[in-house]
Amino acid sequence: IPMSSPFTNPTAREAALFSQLPHTLAAAKQAAGWASILATVEPVGVTSRHALAALPVTRKSELKDLQQAALPFGGLTSTANTGLKRLFMSPGPLFDPEGRGADWWRAAPAFEAAGVQAGDVIHNCFSYHFTPAAFMVEGGAQLLGCPVIPAGVGQTEQQLEALAAFKPRVYAGTPSFLRILIEKAAEIKQDISHLEIALVAGEACPPSLRKLLQDGGIKTVVQWYGTADLGCIAYETVTDGALDAGMVLSEDVILEIVRPGTGDVCEEGEVGEIVITNLNADYPLIRFGTGDMSRVLFADNDRYTNTRIAGWLGRADQTTKVRGMFVHPGQVANVCKKFSDIKKARLVVAGETGQDSMTLKVELASSTEAQLHAIAETVREVTKLRCDVQAVALGSLPNDGKVIEDARSYA
Amino acid sequence: IPMSSPFTNPTAREAALFSQLPHTLAAAKQAAGWASILATVEPVGVTSRHALAALPVTRKSELKDLQQAALPFGGLTSTANTGLKRLFMSPGPLFDPEGRGADWWRAAPAFEAAGVQAGDVIHNCFSYHFTPAAFMVEGGAQLLGCPVIPAGVGQTEQQLEALAAFKPRVYAGTPSFLRILIEKAAEIKQDISHLEIALVAGEACPPSLRKLLQDGGIKTVVQWYGTADLGCIAYETVTDGALDAGMVLSEDVILEIVRPGTGDVCEEGEVGEIVITNLNADYPLIRFGTGDMSRVLFADNDRYTNTRIAGWLGRADQTTKVRGMFVHPGQVANVCKKFSDIKKARLVVAGETGQDSMTLKVELASSTEAQLHAIAETVREVTKLRCDVQAVALGSLPNDGKVIEDARSYA
Repeated sequence: IPMSSPFTNPTAREAALFSQLPHTLAAAKQAAGWASILATVEPVGVTSRHALAALPVTRKSELKDLQQAALPFGGLTSTANTGLKRLFMSPGPLFDPEGRGADWWRAAPAFEAAGVQAGDVIHNCFSYHFTPAAFMVEGGAQLLGCPVIPAGVGQTEQQLEALAAFKPRVYAGTPSFLRILIEKAAEIKQDISHLEIALVAGEACPPSLRKLLQDGGIKTVVQWYGTADLGCIAYETVTDGALDAGMVLSEDVILEIVRPGTGDVCEEGEVGEIVITNLNADYPLIRFGTGDMSRVLFADNDRYTNTRIAGWLGRADQTTKVRGMFVHPGQVANVCKKFSDIKKARLVVAGETGQDSMTLKVELASSTEAQLHAIAETVREVTKLRCDVQAVALGSLPNDGKVIEDARSYA
Repeated sequence: IPMSSPFTNPTAREAALFSQLPHTLAAAKQAAGWASILATVEPVGVTSRHALAALPVTRKSELKDLQQAALPFGGLTSTANTGLKRLFMSPGPLFDPEGRGADWWRAAPAFEAAGVQAGDVIHNCFSYHFTPAAFMVEGGAQLLGCPVIPAGVGQTEQQLEALAAFKPRVYAGTPSFLRILIEKAAEIKQDISHLEIALVAGEACPPSLRKLLQDGGIKTVVQWYGTADLGCIAYETVTDGALDAGMVLSEDVILEIVRPGTGDVCEEGEVGEIVITNLNADYPLIRFGTGDMSRVLFADNDRYTNTRIAGWLGRADQTTKVRGMFVHPGQVANVCKKFSDIKKARLVVAGETGQDSMTLKVELASSTEAQLHAIAETVREVTKLRCDVQAVALGSLPNDGKVIEDARSYA
């Protein structure tokens, strides 16, 4: 089964996504939840990124309330519960469905890109209980024709016993649990060189940890990124044995990077929140704010023609408390909207707890005292807090997606 | 998908099983393990129960050694590991494969017989990690079209949270864990009356426990019986809301009840070890001694025409230690074989530990002192232990499958 992208031409992919989108929106609106969220949206006109950007963002942080109001899925599923394959519950609680389609979570293309082949045994160290990651692996493995050891997490000794008996070529799980297995194998002098590929997800895998896994004998360590709501969204790829830059997007999802706390699309290359529109027939998610940050990479690849992103660059929800009051990224965005010449802004909260001070750094081509004063007044209106305003040069604020920087000392 | 038996005529079923058997044997002998075990067997001639009874019994207690000699599956699988769906490891360790066929473990007919229908949500409280029971439920659920909550065991509070959100109609798991959920729900006053059917397995469910579950609101509590090697072998059925007697056999398995420690088929109705020949293309098991005891029931049923058994009646492995020496049921059988007029025998071990005494009770139409003495001498030769021999009337020994009864006091 060739998993390779149906599109070798990015323009054709974009056209296909946006010709599907109105149908997905119309189908989604049959569900009570989306009917309410998209009440004013005419699906037929949403055929471009510009039109999509006008739709409301529904954030992961809002899911709990939506779901509690209409258990279990907040009226956001198009397939009745009776027609689903599995029902999940993640801490929160947050509820997630799995539909019946093959490789419903889109894991197989990620595994294939890592070099996994039909018949490779996959040692699956995600927990199977209540949460979906293990079943994402199962779906990909079944489509590719790979036997799975449903190992779960913990029970290190049994894990090593199973490795010895089955000699799997592939590990799937968190990178930190793989580290535990490698260290235990070294301790008891068990050869685990049969493990050649690690498909890691569920947590960040910084370069130091990747190196540790590779030093432990795993030739190929690749990350795939997903959420319990969306399944796999992006994954690392390998060309001639070496990792390509960043992660390539999965098919059938539309990526936007937005300024945290808003629905405003960032300039290409800017760090912001990953917002995904998932063209899934069972559980369509329209402008779903993941709460994770990344940015688009400019990197061409002959085999994988989809957009690439930089991987996980932090959490987008930067809501903080200053002198007892919550301050949201959306409030910073509201201030900026009132001053059209502010190119970008960053609220820096500093000082000791209880003596916090706020400084709004604004990128301006030029500024006057009166203008900075007006901005400070607006911040006070919006946040009920006093704030210094400091003009900085265009392009001088760091590209790290931070709209609110908490620089306080918590020592 | 109608799950009902392909056979309404027991004679047709028997003919089909025994016309398939030689092909299964020939295929099995392609695997190194069965080639060795069945070295002298000509598959083409094994077309009757009489011929099957001449084949060696391979007991579950022997699997570990067979597997360790040829990891992981002892050369007993017909499908290469690369072509399997999942690889399991149970405590021992014992390794078990799952093939790719739909409902590979034959759970769906058991669930359908309990009243489970397409779209019913199944709360699956078997552990998914390393062992196969949870995947037996998954396979049955998928074939029937039932969404599954992969709940696993433990985490009682999350279990109840998931019950509240998803309101499943069906519980699958051990009866004792269901009892825990019912008691916890009562404690926190959570209504779980949506749970109407419980598919219990993995441990005995005595009438007292069944009543407790029914008093807890579960209308239908049915047991299904299986092993990690064979999958579902037999299951309870319901007619007009009431349990039928015993359990009906699954299709595609040949049941024999043998005298513990031997390959000798018991008389119909006698308690003995469940020996199964599994006509499975991936993992054929030929005269596989489960170590569990049951007996054939004489009970007609209009809907389910397959043989019925009495359910689980104890463990068949009665090996014990007497004055420091192991005594096996097979040794008792060896003694009996030397005296053709012994109808049935039971070795009773009594006394305090360290002062054990053995009495062999033998069913004889008539007996002489000389004969009893000869029997005692034979026991001594076979076991190296002194033994009293006591003649009893034909049919007077209890029908409980016990070849060795340990009546010692361990207080």
